[in-house]
Amino acid sequence: MRAFNFSAGPAALPEEVLKEAQAELLDYQNSGMSIMEMSHRGKEYSAIHAETIANIKELLNIPEGYSVLFMTGGASTQFALIPMNLLGEGQTADYTNSGAWAAKAIKEGQLLGNVNIAADCGKEIPTRVPTLGELNLTDGAAYLHITSNETISGAQWKQFPEHETLIADMSSDILSRPLDVSKFGLIYAGAQKNLGPAGVTLVIIRDELAKRCPDTVPTIMRYQTHIDGNSLFNTVPTFPVYMLCLVTRWLKAKGGLEAMQRQNEEKAAKLYAAIDGTDFYTGTAVKENRSTMNVTFRIANEELEAKFIAEAAEKNLKGLKGHRSVGGIRASIYNAFPAEGVDALISFMKEFEAANG
Amino acid sequence: MRAFNFSAGPAALPEEVLKEAQAELLDYQNSGMSIMEMSHRGKEYSAIHAETIANIKELLNIPEGYSVLFMTGGASTQFALIPMNLLGEGQTADYTNSGAWAAKAIKEGQLLGNVNIAADCGKEIPTRVPTLGELNLTDGAAYLHITSNETISGAQWKQFPEHETLIADMSSDILSRPLDVSKFGLIYAGAQKNLGPAGVTLVIIRDELAKRCPDTVPTIMRYQTHIDGNSLFNTVPTFPVYMLCLVTRWLKAKGGLEAMQRQNEEKAAKLYAAIDGTDFYTGTAVKENRSTMNVTFRIANEELEAKFIAEAAEKNLKGLKGHRSVGGIRASIYNAFPAEGVDALISFMKEFEAANG
Repeated sequence: MRAFNFSAGPAALPEEVLKEAQAELLDYQNSGMSIMEMSHRGKEYSAIHAETIANIKELLNIPEGYSVLFMTGGASTQFALIPMNLLGEGQTADYTNSGAWAAKAIKEGQLLGNVNIAADCGKEIPTRVPTLGELNLTDGAAYLHITSNETISGAQWKQFPEHETLIADMSSDILSRPLDVSKFGLIYAGAQKNLGPAGVTLVIIRDELAKRCPDTVPTIMRYQTHIDGNSLFNTVPTFPVYMLCLVTRWLKAKGGLEAMQRQNEEKAAKLYAAIDGTDFYTGTAVKENRSTMNVTFRIANEELEAKFIAEAAEKNLKGLKGHRSVGGIRASIYNAFPAEGVDALISFMKEFEAANG
Repeated sequence: MRAFNFSAGPAALPEEVLKEAQAELLDYQNSGMSIMEMSHRGKEYSAIHAETIANIKELLNIPEGYSVLFMTGGASTQFALIPMNLLGEGQTADYTNSGAWAAKAIKEGQLLGNVNIAADCGKEIPTRVPTLGELNLTDGAAYLHITSNETISGAQWKQFPEHETLIADMSSDILSRPLDVSKFGLIYAGAQKNLGPAGVTLVIIRDELAKRCPDTVPTIMRYQTHIDGNSLFNTVPTFPVYMLCLVTRWLKAKGGLEAMQRQNEEKAAKLYAAIDGTDFYTGTAVKENRSTMNVTFRIANEELEAKFIAEAAEKNLKGLKGHRSVGGIRASIYNAFPAEGVDALISFMKEFEAANG
């Protein structure tokens, strides 16, 4: 039996996708080889590579002048590459601090250049992201960096600030809702939450931005290198991209990002209603910023939380433990997480409250 | 039917390993989840992570004081990280140029610091690696960098130079033969040739070396970060490491690196004997440096080579085309490549010569 997997990342993948990968794992399209064993420059993988880029461009309706890149090293690597490529000597970059992930991006920015914290609500409880009104922006800043969804705190931007060079870490909500990519200079996302397995990082970049990079930056660390090489400057992580290809096909078959957004909002609304319907559970994020991806909540004490997590796991509801840095309970319900799993969690929450409330 | 896959990388994996991965792809150890869907900090993946490190330490008999790291970005990323971490201001690093891969390492070294080319045979035909006698080493060099096997040219170091801080790119021959790791400061290898699928880079580092890194280097780009975090500072590419785990188990079951070396030498010797037994084929590398991993050879003209590659593919002998930069024929016969495939290639070579010689 498939578990209901609430892990924050690596996270649940669509069962249909896993079955397809399993079926052709030893023999991709009658080649007598696994896709894992094939050259990244051969015709089979090249077709996957091109299709994945095309699917992402279609799903997000990406305008001309942007490139879709497959990189590695996750968001943590992008935290460094962004200032290395885009923050010129003497310039300032604006960052918003909305929680643990934003703080990590800020730390690397500060290591490499001048950073202005345009707003800081990173440690507030209930958790939230900055309001558009409170942003204290620098004139002529190299860029403004935001974290579109804080995986740990469960706070999500619902409306984005306007900026000539807006950069967003979308690791935990990319492809969960339609997006006007033209409003962004650069978007990045580790795949292991809403896109596929760990091992590939999706980057969407306005091409002209890449030209800012000084030539003292190592070749592999320049966005321009990956644009010029169509993400094949060096060996791309072929199997993770193949899985991403299957996930994008699945998204298209499910009706694209409008359909995904509808489903995600329905799943999240049900779960938040269950939290709000009783004093036994308390949501962690302010209502306006509640994440559709990571639903965070608390019970009165940590002992009860531990009991909740353990008993849920026995009922096949797995991965509900909040991040080790903050505790509590976190239900990550990305695109691939089925609605029945949310219903099962809500039933369990009622049972648990009845027994322990 | 499984093809005989001579690809240089991504390359053939053991059929048993692929079958095991396939069998448990949707349900890892009755968890109801794929290993791809599991947290990199959960108990299932943690066990795989620890076992993979232990297996590599056992296979290579790695002494105390070294760490085994799982990184990303392939050898191309290591080309930059090595000087960033280990080449101090005002210091010089020695590099040997043995071909295309060494040249790439040198290029990044030169971008980031002072480089001395200790020997240069990178463009010689027949291809080779430097002799120990011709190395022109710098007193007090930060390190000496070599490329243990040139995947493109088919030239391999058989005996390594002595150096206090010897660094080797072993992407295409790691775990193909026993190795005295204590003679090296740092060894690195992209997984996609002899270890597993693309997406993880194996690094073996003498711990004290990592301390050299200046604190201006971004966090994720310091070896120390990955040593301190046991390669879990950020999300490790879990599925590629899982595949690497299965490959290391397979290597142990096959008798370890002594057995592998014996098999690799037997496979290579047979193939080189077939090349040497006729004037129709000409080996690319000098005999003393012939690679046991990448067997490179030529036929009199490119038209015949193209015909050879095409007809071989029809007989299920795939991936024999030499690298696009040099042409010719390349049979990559890594650990996982079966001896029967070498026999099949030799038979085909005889047939082809009889028809076209």
